[in-house]
Amino acid sequence: MTSSASKSWLLLLGFILFYVIYLLLGALVFSSIERPVEDKLRNDIQTMQREFLNQTCINATALEEFLVKALSASEYGVSVLQNSSLNSNWDMASSMFFANTLVTTVGYGHSTPLSDMGKAFSILYALIGVPFTMLVLTASVQRLMYPLVHAPQALFQRSGLDPRPASQLHFALLLAAVLLCFFVAPAFVFRAIEGSWSFLDAVYFCFMSLCTVGLGDFVPGEQPGQKYRSLYKVVVMVYLFVGLMMMYLLLRAFHKMADLHGLTSFLELPHCEEPEGDLRPILGDGPTDTGPPPPGPLHHRAATKQPLEPAAQPSYNTISKG
Amino acid sequence: MTSSASKSWLLLLGFILFYVIYLLLGALVFSSIERPVEDKLRNDIQTMQREFLNQTCINATALEEFLVKALSASEYGVSVLQNSSLNSNWDMASSMFFANTLVTTVGYGHSTPLSDMGKAFSILYALIGVPFTMLVLTASVQRLMYPLVHAPQALFQRSGLDPRPASQLHFALLLAAVLLCFFVAPAFVFRAIEGSWSFLDAVYFCFMSLCTVGLGDFVPGEQPGQKYRSLYKVVVMVYLFVGLMMMYLLLRAFHKMADLHGLTSFLELPHCEEPEGDLRPILGDGPTDTGPPPPGPLHHRAATKQPLEPAAQPSYNTISKG
Repeated sequence: MTSSASKSWLLLLGFILFYVIYLLLGALVFSSIERPVEDKLRNDIQTMQREFLNQTCINATALEEFLVKALSASEYGVSVLQNSSLNSNWDMASSMFFANTLVTTVGYGHSTPLSDMGKAFSILYALIGVPFTMLVLTASVQRLMYPLVHAPQALFQRSGLDPRPASQLHFALLLAAVLLCFFVAPAFVFRAIEGSWSFLDAVYFCFMSLCTVGLGDFVPGEQPGQKYRSLYKVVVMVYLFVGLMMMYLLLRAFHKMADLHGLTSFLELPHCEEPEGDLRPILGDGPTDTGPPPPGPLHHRAATKQPLEPAAQPSYNTISKG
Repeated sequence: MTSSASKSWLLLLGFILFYVIYLLLGALVFSSIERPVEDKLRNDIQTMQREFLNQTCINATALEEFLVKALSASEYGVSVLQNSSLNSNWDMASSMFFANTLVTTVGYGHSTPLSDMGKAFSILYALIGVPFTMLVLTASVQRLMYPLVHAPQALFQRSGLDPRPASQLHFALLLAAVLLCFFVAPAFVFRAIEGSWSFLDAVYFCFMSLCTVGLGDFVPGEQPGQKYRSLYKVVVMVYLFVGLMMMYLLLRAFHKMADLHGLTSFLELPHCEEPEGDLRPILGDGPTDTGPPPPGPLHHRAATKQPLEPAAQPSYNTISKG
């Protein structure tokens, strides 16, 4: 049992290690493809700006032409401004940040691949990376379900609460903890580091990131003159990954609660699966082929007051439909 | 049985209707909050541009100041260019498009709320809209699982294929169909409509959208002078919704196939749940409390060669772990 549990953690560790290697590899490729294109665009736009300033008097057409180029360069993340031209969008840290926002489907889009090769590689990279990230996230959450969902709920039930109120209380506490640790606290940090962000801006950034919307109007580490920019980008990446994990955990806990209240049956949605595997090592209740049902679904059985026959779920389904 | 099935479809129809109303409502609020702010910014930047042109001779500092404002306006989707200033980002169709990309978590970010109130409303809107969209997508996919996954797989099995090759063949065909109908065909359409997009750009857009990455470097209906822009935006919205549905269906089909091959057990991930509800009305096999197991998991049983006892899944789990 212990060897199986440690094997499971080893598998997860292997996943995470491979995930980091995948991000580094992606960063290397993006950086080598996009860096020269970016440098060329930056040089072009600086030359253009010098030429524009050399004109004795400017007219509307010349300004318009200049602006067309300046704005299209800005869309690709290359700014004509003097003080922002020091940071590359495709150094190692920024490339890794881009790779990370690609595979987590956040996709801020504050810098995007310029070359056709970069675009093609982005598709290929996301094609493997998005499912793989989902796998790593699912596997991580699966291991967190016991300590953060099942164990506290069992504790509440042992304190005399019924399964339904226990799951409600647990969900409320989990929600409050996630809000505090992954929205409010990081927002204070971001407001302190990013000079021009208000607290609302920082909360808005956290929310849009952890919902994977990623509008990209606020991206950390993009202001000129920030110290330890690479380290900062890496920390934000870890924040994104752990934050997404907690959002997914919250979703699983909600799904479990909705299941317990017959909501998923009512809406005819897929049921939440109880990961019995995580409970077995703790309770020392090894399964046998004809043995008793594992302890996982016991709460469910208590809530529905029905024996756990194979046909129990469909009939529960029928009951809630009237 | 038939009344239960039609009730289930009615519920889904209600969901979709409510979804459309929710998008319209969001569009109305976003439009009324953001339109005035956008108009003000547009006027400000035009005045600034006129003043800039009135200077007899420009210097680097004046240009830099002008560019700072022009670029920050452009980041919010307001362009200083003459020919692009006709389209508002916050008319009804564009606001609805923004609301749609928010709740589907695509989030192109080509236009973002400017005002604090707009940002706060975005958070609130996504807070309700993202889970609701997931619910509508899940409910839709749940109803599509029988005709697009279970029925074809059963057909292949009746033709003499074993469950595993049947699910592999089915997944390959489904993948090809989705690639053709939701990536290749739309890419041709987008390339034809958006003058400046190459075929790669269009495929890149489809891919980044349906993976919900949404980088936003290519957004349909943003070029100046496009006819039927509002209708076009609505069609793209429908494409996004149906496309996401198919991506989710593909994921569910893959999960089912992985389950059948013991992959999810090996990785200790949650198992795929067979929606028995959809099969029952067709086969006319009403469940009873102590009756035989529903026909859904039969394929699974055939594949694992194990009786469907409550403890069957944990023990299957144990077997594949060696």
